[in-house]
Amino acid sequence: MAGPIEDFYAVIPAGGIGSRLWPLSRADAPKFLHDLTGSGHTLLHDTWHRLEPLTGRDRIAVVTGRAHRAAVEKELPGILDKNLFLESEPRDSTAAIGLAAAVLSRREPDVIIGSFAADHVIRVPHLFEWAVRQAVEVAREGFVCTIGIQPSEPSISFGYIKKKRQLVIEGAPEAALVESFVEKPDLETAKEYFASRDHLWNAGMFISRADVLLGEIADNQPALYAGLMDLAEAWDDRDARGPVVDRVWPTLPKIAIDYAVAEPAAEKGRLAVVPGHFDWDDVGDFASLAKLNSKGRKNDLAVLGKNARILSDAASGIVVSQTSRVISLIGVNDIVVVDTEDALLVTTSEHAQRVKGVVDALKLNGRGDVL
Amino acid sequence: MAGPIEDFYAVIPAGGIGSRLWPLSRADAPKFLHDLTGSGHTLLHDTWHRLEPLTGRDRIAVVTGRAHRAAVEKELPGILDKNLFLESEPRDSTAAIGLAAAVLSRREPDVIIGSFAADHVIRVPHLFEWAVRQAVEVAREGFVCTIGIQPSEPSISFGYIKKKRQLVIEGAPEAALVESFVEKPDLETAKEYFASRDHLWNAGMFISRADVLLGEIADNQPALYAGLMDLAEAWDDRDARGPVVDRVWPTLPKIAIDYAVAEPAAEKGRLAVVPGHFDWDDVGDFASLAKLNSKGRKNDLAVLGKNARILSDAASGIVVSQTSRVISLIGVNDIVVVDTEDALLVTTSEHAQRVKGVVDALKLNGRGDVL
Repeated sequence: MAGPIEDFYAVIPAGGIGSRLWPLSRADAPKFLHDLTGSGHTLLHDTWHRLEPLTGRDRIAVVTGRAHRAAVEKELPGILDKNLFLESEPRDSTAAIGLAAAVLSRREPDVIIGSFAADHVIRVPHLFEWAVRQAVEVAREGFVCTIGIQPSEPSISFGYIKKKRQLVIEGAPEAALVESFVEKPDLETAKEYFASRDHLWNAGMFISRADVLLGEIADNQPALYAGLMDLAEAWDDRDARGPVVDRVWPTLPKIAIDYAVAEPAAEKGRLAVVPGHFDWDDVGDFASLAKLNSKGRKNDLAVLGKNARILSDAASGIVVSQTSRVISLIGVNDIVVVDTEDALLVTTSEHAQRVKGVVDALKLNGRGDVL
Repeated sequence: MAGPIEDFYAVIPAGGIGSRLWPLSRADAPKFLHDLTGSGHTLLHDTWHRLEPLTGRDRIAVVTGRAHRAAVEKELPGILDKNLFLESEPRDSTAAIGLAAAVLSRREPDVIIGSFAADHVIRVPHLFEWAVRQAVEVAREGFVCTIGIQPSEPSISFGYIKKKRQLVIEGAPEAALVESFVEKPDLETAKEYFASRDHLWNAGMFISRADVLLGEIADNQPALYAGLMDLAEAWDDRDARGPVVDRVWPTLPKIAIDYAVAEPAAEKGRLAVVPGHFDWDDVGDFASLAKLNSKGRKNDLAVLGKNARILSDAASGIVVSQTSRVISLIGVNDIVVVDTEDALLVTTSEHAQRVKGVVDALKLNGRGDVL
């Protein structure tokens, strides 16, 4: 079972800034370019190396903004030029993944692509591999396949995927058909989902044959599909690419792949799911970052920052230190302190979700210099 | 009643760092060199200008550390060289005030000195003046006289002075004999004191004839007295001062004037008190600083810092901003945030008293660079 999977190609959309992690995440230092686990590596680097055993190093594409080209190449010195897809501006995930699918499909008609966010944290790699290997077998059968995370608690932070019935597919014993997607629930509902065992967390991982994916886009977003075809035709022609990108890319509809592909496919019985038994987190806010870095101990202040100089009696929460300044915390619990050169955030785990509001307010107040 | 008071000389001991206000107050930027009220001036500057109408500008002495000479001269460009008493090292308040008293008494035997801390906040100057004018008349009669602040609430943050009986002294209708000093009380006791109306806050202001003050020191601290006499004899002799200071100053017993003078004088019926009806605060910690700067509104975040860029939904507490960084507070109340170039403090009003413990811990941990 070891070794690269035949026909498989990984696509890493590296786009979002991660506004809920401001002022750590910024336009010029998005979430995927940070080490959020103390591993010594960025999330992008970890994502790449998690995929490499499944694809080989020459079969991982990254779709990112032009502004991040240098940073991405520094993080991923092994990336081939042909695997770097640069966006002139963000057009959301369907355009990003669709572009890669369209280009790769022209290069290699039978290619099966799997898209994996650049800024998620995954532990226990062999369980991740096992899920992906199953998902690729499901994709070979013509399904769009997602990997849904087996919940470890009744979380209200994630959307859920409801399983319908098991599928019988060689090499994918855990595959099931998806009945529907459900939005982030309230706690009561989350508890029901958790107890039911037939609801999985939506981690936004999609694996399918490129032609199947493009077919879904064609069905559901024909204008977007047409644009992707124009781009793909010109992409590998050095002279043609630039003008077509300039003309077409800015016109592509902005829509998340969940809405453009996954939900419509689910409705038509063409979406499958494989459960993921690995630890997964999308590190959506500082509360989740604190949890991730508290080393399993509930009563522990998490600290992120190589040169952190902390003097604290706080029993929980997180300090992110990007400066050399001494940080002293007295009598504050569940606190979130993010100390960067030009901005300081102080909040609590409970209010961590509201950080995005600050970013919006800073934009409105003309303080974009710190975003 | 206006104009300088005959024989009167003000002494401003400018010594303490104000550790409970770290990291705002530092060894090289002690509390008295900060603007803590948003007045645009340091506490030392305000103290000086509060006294000037009572003494004239040539009769205010400042006792401070050698390290602060330049800063003090910058703050007080009008200070005469003969009024600047420089300590080679801190020897507590009896040595500081006693030195000024001994030297001034040789220059001017009938001098009445009043000592006023450099780092207190006082509002309503004409009420302050009225109290000082009464206190000087009491001092003329041979008493050591203190100004006790009429409490505005049952505070547990201050020591109290218990009045015994009224004195009949021309020009000092409110003067009373002091029965005793009492330490910071618990809340129950503070409420009794407040209701009794015969307890005043000890603000550490002492007014007395220099010879009376020195007599008390002679009675209670003979070794200290002998040292002060040696210093005073040499002080105004340019050649003699240096060697005597080097030899004597470091040997002086360290004792607060409350213990060396005020309490023994009270026991012997030689301490009087005049009530102060002005607003007074020793700005002992950040909770008190927050209160002082909240403009009387209880639900208001106080902000100190000319260039503060704050985005906050906090309804109370204080932010002290010494950097240009954007400070964002979400969902934290009664918060204390002190943001300086090399140190950051986050605590709450409730825990503000514990800041001194951090300073001690930083010393122990070899982080004296930020103290």
